[in-house]
Amino acid sequence: MKSLDEADFTIIGLGLMGASLAAALRPHCRSILGVDLDDEALRWCKAQRWIDEGYQHPEQAVSHADVVVLATPVRAILGLLDTVPDYLRPGTILTDLGSTKVAICQKMQELPTYIQAVGGHPLCGREVSGASYADPRLFQDRTFVLVPTSRTSPEALALLEQMVSTIGAHPMHMNAEIHDRLVAITSHLPYLVACTLTRTAAQAPDPDDLLRRLAASGFRDTSRLAGSDVRMMIDILQTNRGNILEGLEIYLQALQDLINILAEGGEEDLKIWLENAQETRRRLVT
Amino acid sequence: MKSLDEADFTIIGLGLMGASLAAALRPHCRSILGVDLDDEALRWCKAQRWIDEGYQHPEQAVSHADVVVLATPVRAILGLLDTVPDYLRPGTILTDLGSTKVAICQKMQELPTYIQAVGGHPLCGREVSGASYADPRLFQDRTFVLVPTSRTSPEALALLEQMVSTIGAHPMHMNAEIHDRLVAITSHLPYLVACTLTRTAAQAPDPDDLLRRLAASGFRDTSRLAGSDVRMMIDILQTNRGNILEGLEIYLQALQDLINILAEGGEEDLKIWLENAQETRRRLVT
Repeated sequence: MKSLDEADFTIIGLGLMGASLAAALRPHCRSILGVDLDDEALRWCKAQRWIDEGYQHPEQAVSHADVVVLATPVRAILGLLDTVPDYLRPGTILTDLGSTKVAICQKMQELPTYIQAVGGHPLCGREVSGASYADPRLFQDRTFVLVPTSRTSPEALALLEQMVSTIGAHPMHMNAEIHDRLVAITSHLPYLVACTLTRTAAQAPDPDDLLRRLAASGFRDTSRLAGSDVRMMIDILQTNRGNILEGLEIYLQALQDLINILAEGGEEDLKIWLENAQETRRRLVT
Repeated sequence: MKSLDEADFTIIGLGLMGASLAAALRPHCRSILGVDLDDEALRWCKAQRWIDEGYQHPEQAVSHADVVVLATPVRAILGLLDTVPDYLRPGTILTDLGSTKVAICQKMQELPTYIQAVGGHPLCGREVSGASYADPRLFQDRTFVLVPTSRTSPEALALLEQMVSTIGAHPMHMNAEIHDRLVAITSHLPYLVACTLTRTAAQAPDPDDLLRRLAASGFRDTSRLAGSDVRMMIDILQTNRGNILEGLEIYLQALQDLINILAEGGEEDLKIWLENAQETRRRLVT
């Protein structure tokens, strides 16, 4: 197995994540080919010297790669897993940056044995999208989940771990089912909570456009994820629907409890409820 | 009426907001006396030269003030409005930094006519509390709501507007009822949404303490307000309960709609719902 500085990469999808990976990785590998249907993204990444060459179709760019990274929305990754493997050399490492892992890793598990597949998920989403927002520091100090298949070789996994560390992230091995169940709570639920908040604000009578002037940092932060790319999020919601619906039901019940406590006015109950929320926040975000 | 640089201030309550006001204002007025039951807060503010003298009881510090600022939690402000006016000279300006305005401004309206009362609310909450977190730049570029009573003189209002501008904030006149209805949506609902999210996360099975490692910037921002000072927030919730419950009911309905759309799987409906949330976010947070 080659070391990172000898490896040729192909990144398919030069949105925020794919282009940021190219930017962070390019100084540390032998070459990066980029694939995107959008000419503008290809030109931008090439002008920044993040990729060596740009192509519009995966089959033009993957046959000599040591590592192929699928960096499109999740359902596009599922589509690519049907077609891209046909063009790969034996031993090629195939990974992805998708935000849900069960559906992707199931497909990876079924690939021909000569492909070294590993699911990947860097936890560094932003509410902006596109190559023009890409940033080589996007992965700095973030958790980068790796999900090997039962057939992934230690060498392939080691090369990807080296890639993760080189771009400044912390590799973390995890089972796909546990990953999807937990990110439903830590990522997908916060997105839907933020969306529900902005939809509630949209319903408030506001003839003088005052809401906008009163929306301070609290509203800004709590609603930030509602600005996320909708196409990307729909793929995530549709491929993790069961876990998300379960989380939403727990959330709905917690909200109903809060409304009851607030309406009935038992101040001690309210205090306990809020202090528990505060303690959990401190425990989870350190 | 004196100008700002000739005015003697008394700030009652040296938590995050009161101490930050002292810090921002001290270079621009004649003196600031601070009042707080907590010796440590008094010592800290005096050591920073944010206040000239510190006292534990309001009656020791208000009789020579030109402007008295009540900077405690909302229900403590309501209590102070029962007692502090007895110690004020005629013409003294009395204002506050409380996050709800209807209950406070009703009391202000009933004060003796020789007191110049104006409700105030700087929109710069943070999830930390206490004088040690105070920052003279806290008010920079923030909206600062002023609610005059029907008897407030133009001169008194002008002095407070000068104070607001001097600390870097933007004064905005508003009616107390409209204020409370709108901040229920822009501030109090985001707080409760954040609390409900952390309580949901607390219920997820997490034997290996993985949630904490997966809680990326999305969870951190969406849940940030759950770290707010509980005592301060209970006062806000209890003095704006009607508006908040109304907002929560709209939010609950929006959430139920989302669950139905997601469970039934109509992707076009889901897309429209999410895009509407995204558009509203862009409109409200610019």
